[in-house]
Amino acid sequence: MPTLSVFMDVPLAHKLEGSLLKTYKQDDCPNKMFLAYRVCMTNEGHPWVSLVVQKTRLQISQDPSLNYEYLPTMGLKSFIQASLELLFGKHSQAIVENRVGGVHTVGDSGAFQLGVQFLRAWHKDARIVYIISSQKELHGLVFQDMGFTVCEYSIWDPKKLCVDPDILLNVVESKQIFPFFDIPCQGLYTGDLEEDTRILQYFVSQGFEFFCSQSLSKNFGIYDEGVGILVVVAVNNQQLLGVLSQLKGLAEALWLNPPNTGARIITSILCNPALLAEWKQSLKEVVENIMLTKEKVKEKLRLLGTPGSWGHITEQSGTHGYLGLNSQQVEHLVRKKHIYIPKNSRINFSCINANNINYITEGINEAVLLTEGSELCLPKEKKL
Amino acid sequence: MPTLSVFMDVPLAHKLEGSLLKTYKQDDCPNKMFLAYRVCMTNEGHPWVSLVVQKTRLQISQDPSLNYEYLPTMGLKSFIQASLELLFGKHSQAIVENRVGGVHTVGDSGAFQLGVQFLRAWHKDARIVYIISSQKELHGLVFQDMGFTVCEYSIWDPKKLCVDPDILLNVVESKQIFPFFDIPCQGLYTGDLEEDTRILQYFVSQGFEFFCSQSLSKNFGIYDEGVGILVVVAVNNQQLLGVLSQLKGLAEALWLNPPNTGARIITSILCNPALLAEWKQSLKEVVENIMLTKEKVKEKLRLLGTPGSWGHITEQSGTHGYLGLNSQQVEHLVRKKHIYIPKNSRINFSCINANNINYITEGINEAVLLTEGSELCLPKEKKL
Repeated sequence: MPTLSVFMDVPLAHKLEGSLLKTYKQDDCPNKMFLAYRVCMTNEGHPWVSLVVQKTRLQISQDPSLNYEYLPTMGLKSFIQASLELLFGKHSQAIVENRVGGVHTVGDSGAFQLGVQFLRAWHKDARIVYIISSQKELHGLVFQDMGFTVCEYSIWDPKKLCVDPDILLNVVESKQIFPFFDIPCQGLYTGDLEEDTRILQYFVSQGFEFFCSQSLSKNFGIYDEGVGILVVVAVNNQQLLGVLSQLKGLAEALWLNPPNTGARIITSILCNPALLAEWKQSLKEVVENIMLTKEKVKEKLRLLGTPGSWGHITEQSGTHGYLGLNSQQVEHLVRKKHIYIPKNSRINFSCINANNINYITEGINEAVLLTEGSELCLPKEKKL
Repeated sequence: MPTLSVFMDVPLAHKLEGSLLKTYKQDDCPNKMFLAYRVCMTNEGHPWVSLVVQKTRLQISQDPSLNYEYLPTMGLKSFIQASLELLFGKHSQAIVENRVGGVHTVGDSGAFQLGVQFLRAWHKDARIVYIISSQKELHGLVFQDMGFTVCEYSIWDPKKLCVDPDILLNVVESKQIFPFFDIPCQGLYTGDLEEDTRILQYFVSQGFEFFCSQSLSKNFGIYDEGVGILVVVAVNNQQLLGVLSQLKGLAEALWLNPPNTGARIITSILCNPALLAEWKQSLKEVVENIMLTKEKVKEKLRLLGTPGSWGHITEQSGTHGYLGLNSQQVEHLVRKKHIYIPKNSRINFSCINANNINYITEGINEAVLLTEGSELCLPKEKKL
């Protein structure tokens, strides 16, 4: 009988930095609020679920003809097909030419894990990864853990207070980079499914090969089912099949069979014109609601006379956007007002609702006014 | 615009050997049958689902109070708790002493992946793995891919035609091995949940530390949801917490959030005494049915006058068991009779039903008689 632990040398893992949510949860202040949830929230402060999902879930659970056998390692074929058509459009040149494929993965994290494993095995020379700042915490670590050097870049210009996509294009073209896109919530950006993947169409049209992590969690409101796809675009079908066959081997070792429920619900919706229309409508409503919230935030800051221009709030699309605050202002909001927002001031606007909008805008106003007074201690920023 | 593929050097992956199912699928013979499915089959030849699962699934999909938020990385807490109690018993010394824990994983493959990653990182000296033959194809590759040397051992004694668990105990004790158990279908072995994990109780009572992959797919009939747990038993709570914290970091990179639906259904059943009783009853029925099938196979072979003793068929527990055929007999069944069974003759007895039992037993009889005639070419086996 062993007496010493074989785990003797295993220490408690260091907590990763950036556990804003954890600090928030430990905060006892009754006014505390968290504006950095990954998921879209309803006006009532719950994670959003498209109504058509609930209906479809119920219908599926009542269908005696369905079986619950293991999915193949590559996943649910009809789900992959429907999702790729959603991403690129049914008549996409790349789909017609049979050079687009995908592996059904356990969420977008699974898609990154799988893609990074592939790149490590088959792109041994490439060891540097450029990752957009807002994705670094979530996905950068996967690259880092596998031995890549991770460099950060930002498409948010804090001086001009706007997003500059040219930064991305310049990096990719000048450095001959292999692109690995992340489409975390198609349709929740502008409310228009096609518009939201325009960048992919551009890269396809330019003949690029790339990977893309496609998550269908947030735009359907199925967060707990790991519905992701690692999308592969190759120059031709032969190359595609080679890549997919290698990915299959990796997925076999990772999880062997991806989970089915979420994929089954989504496929039922995407393949039924009436349900599809309902879903699209629900996306539009969410996006309109978020735009309205942004308008209200801007208007309230205007009425409060908060110094600065706040047009950038409504100029950004999507659930998440930069408030355009500096680190001192963010610090004030977190420490003094118990409003938890990330250092880069990129918040989830769907977390703002009728119950908290006044407290939040007044907090922002206070933070900006206070740091105005301490301008002498800070490098003076150009007012726009 | 790039002209050459970045995937140029990526070949089609070699197909793994042992794709018995693939050969079966490509066989055009109308009489073909496959006796090596991983899952338990009904008499009608469909994957078995416990009736209480369907009821619970429906009930869950009608519950408006449930949310579908991301699960924490470690998974659904109540699911882990209930599953560990199922495995070790509520009053297990190890549970009381707070030195048992688990990570909710994407099926048993996910549990192996996670456990092997941990062992690679924290047991750098241990590089040899002993794996039971029947598990080699499924889980051995995970170890191999991560640089372990995989050695095979069998607890099936082909001479004595019986399973000899002492082989396992001797290996573990003599070689100071760290045990990594696989409990793929608790309850489907003897029909008695406690009886089926007696080996774990033994190792706990002896003070061993170990990992265990616990799958709840097969014993509930939820195959497509990846319901697994990587179970950790340590000598004390402090060691346990260290290991779990490191596993959390690995799981974050692998899939970040495990899938929920299957775990939610199972937890509802395990935590409700009435549903639990129904589930237990359904397990008993399955096991009784399999025992009946085995009796029938034995009786039919007896009536056919097939040479040899066939008592070992009914002496083995569980869905899967060894027929005790040699490689030439297996070959005959596959090639001539289109009855697909693995080389070691370990079949899934739930694949045998009223429709195919005559064809199968007649095939076995034919194979045995034919190889009897060719005894001169083979080492003579001792008749029992």
